[in-house]
Amino acid sequence: MSRFWSEMARRTEPYVPGEQLNRAEIIKLNTNENPYPPAPGVTEAIRSAAEGLRLYPSPTADPLRQAIADAEGLGQENVFTANGSDEVLAFSFMAFFDPGKTIRFPDVTYSFYPVYSNLFGVPFEEVPLRNDFTLDTNAFLGADGGVILPNPNAPTGIYEPLDGIRRILEGNPDRVVIIDEAYIDFAGPSAAALIMEYDNLLVVRTTSKSRSLAGLRVGYALGSAELIEGLVRIKDSFNSYTTDRLAQAGAEAAFRDAGYFEETTAKIIATRGSSAMRLAELGFTVLPSSANFLFCTHPEAEAEQLYTELKSRNILVRHFSKPRIKDYLRITVGTDDEMDKLFGALEEILPN
Amino acid sequence: MSRFWSEMARRTEPYVPGEQLNRAEIIKLNTNENPYPPAPGVTEAIRSAAEGLRLYPSPTADPLRQAIADAEGLGQENVFTANGSDEVLAFSFMAFFDPGKTIRFPDVTYSFYPVYSNLFGVPFEEVPLRNDFTLDTNAFLGADGGVILPNPNAPTGIYEPLDGIRRILEGNPDRVVIIDEAYIDFAGPSAAALIMEYDNLLVVRTTSKSRSLAGLRVGYALGSAELIEGLVRIKDSFNSYTTDRLAQAGAEAAFRDAGYFEETTAKIIATRGSSAMRLAELGFTVLPSSANFLFCTHPEAEAEQLYTELKSRNILVRHFSKPRIKDYLRITVGTDDEMDKLFGALEEILPN
Repeated sequence: MSRFWSEMARRTEPYVPGEQLNRAEIIKLNTNENPYPPAPGVTEAIRSAAEGLRLYPSPTADPLRQAIADAEGLGQENVFTANGSDEVLAFSFMAFFDPGKTIRFPDVTYSFYPVYSNLFGVPFEEVPLRNDFTLDTNAFLGADGGVILPNPNAPTGIYEPLDGIRRILEGNPDRVVIIDEAYIDFAGPSAAALIMEYDNLLVVRTTSKSRSLAGLRVGYALGSAELIEGLVRIKDSFNSYTTDRLAQAGAEAAFRDAGYFEETTAKIIATRGSSAMRLAELGFTVLPSSANFLFCTHPEAEAEQLYTELKSRNILVRHFSKPRIKDYLRITVGTDDEMDKLFGALEEILPN
Repeated sequence: MSRFWSEMARRTEPYVPGEQLNRAEIIKLNTNENPYPPAPGVTEAIRSAAEGLRLYPSPTADPLRQAIADAEGLGQENVFTANGSDEVLAFSFMAFFDPGKTIRFPDVTYSFYPVYSNLFGVPFEEVPLRNDFTLDTNAFLGADGGVILPNPNAPTGIYEPLDGIRRILEGNPDRVVIIDEAYIDFAGPSAAALIMEYDNLLVVRTTSKSRSLAGLRVGYALGSAELIEGLVRIKDSFNSYTTDRLAQAGAEAAFRDAGYFEETTAKIIATRGSSAMRLAELGFTVLPSSANFLFCTHPEAEAEQLYTELKSRNILVRHFSKPRIKDYLRITVGTDDEMDKLFGALEEILPN
């Protein structure tokens, strides 16, 4: 601790992202990146936007927001964009949650939520998932300060159908309910369909997973115009230009190519299905995944040791040293070839 | 106001950036962008980095931080990078200033400072500049919560020599003093030279002005390792990946080309000198500028009306409707050709 740090800097417990080893020989199945490159038009859009780099970007990112609105069947006033969905989430904590009012999120969930809570002094209650890791939606009704949860949940990959989301929205009519849909494109229907019905619903999305743009940092939120305006107020009090010219142009090109998006998403879903079966054949218990990763545990092998053994073979997966999930590994769905290499390694490592 | 907004969203008064009209016929002298394109290597670096967009960027941006450290003769541990200098400033307010402890900044200064103060609940005192708009450094000694000021100041362009900065640093040994050097490359020596002497000094910089990268959003801070660590703690509690792959690669290429940087900076300084003389010939009083803009007033023409007349001729300059500076215009130094067009228009508009 430095004597120059604020109370905020002292009390915060920073988030630790997954390892970003970029050696070419590494098979990287640890941070849920897309194994396929971005849509072919993205590179050209970026090259063209690079010609204007001496000028500030648009602070409102209208063409990008319109492309997202078109893809979602919403209006531009229902779309907010920022520098990755983590920034959207941080702005959402600032715009909708208050110190002194306890919010709720699941006990097994995206580990950035408690970090934001500590940073902004928002008290939180961790609502236990059921034993099978599904959501107990009744436990989210009447939250004092609001609700935030991922759907599908991370790192379990389990999807909560819209009926459950509806129940939570109706159980918190005066509080904002944030549904963090980082992985929704690999899952069932999105809560975005409920935006016109519930003015307390904010849906948060990313281009890092299904759009293959983790390196470009573009996240977005969908919601009623008054929630979007709340986010804009915070953004314009924090950083007027959060998405740069290249990010706006590249993400817009990705949203304009629905065909490529559908094709790569379908491939990942197919690989997820075959990989889940192969994991089961090796003796793993695999949670039903609606995301681009598989969350699994093996009765005869310690998860942390598997993680280490795989890493020594240049295969990175993710292990969380947390009470309820320490026996699990989270494995990103890669290409079929990458998964073949993973299974080759697992066959070597696992006891016969 | 929406019933869903937090106290923070309600109390904030968002910053209003300069107009971003991007019609080709507009001569844009209103947001202090560089009239020259980025260094020639920037485009190629971006094109090459675009190949890796499906993967997250480095959260620590080591190669970019090393390039900046090399350019400044500092270590990598003395360099922090983020999504534009506005984000660096926002993180600095979070990391070093506390609610309940009054900070000080000049009464005529960058208008984002009071916005951050309101957003984070940090009380502030506006210290009047002298009548000639120079800094009264004595008035900044013993600040309860810390000090922030731009050098050269904005929108005046006046540079405070390092002796004055030293006095403020020594008058606040237990508080952080932030010197916002957005325009330093067009001015005298940087306070970065004092970092090894004063552990309470944070120097904030941008690539938007002298590096021609306003569209890429890369800002940085220089300071003692403990101040940099405070910023990293906040960043990692807010958004792990604030600079994207293209921004890291493009900015690194800009810092590696010292020759281009020196050449374009010298051209702007030369155009600034000739433009200041031409403004004086037209009857303007021009403050002595050490930035890439000129701040000037005319005894026989209202500044706001001049702004409007110029805008009707497709020339954008900046006018601030604030008490002490409402009679002034801030004019970005463009190319010689753009300045010729500005002067042509002014000759038409001004009374003979």
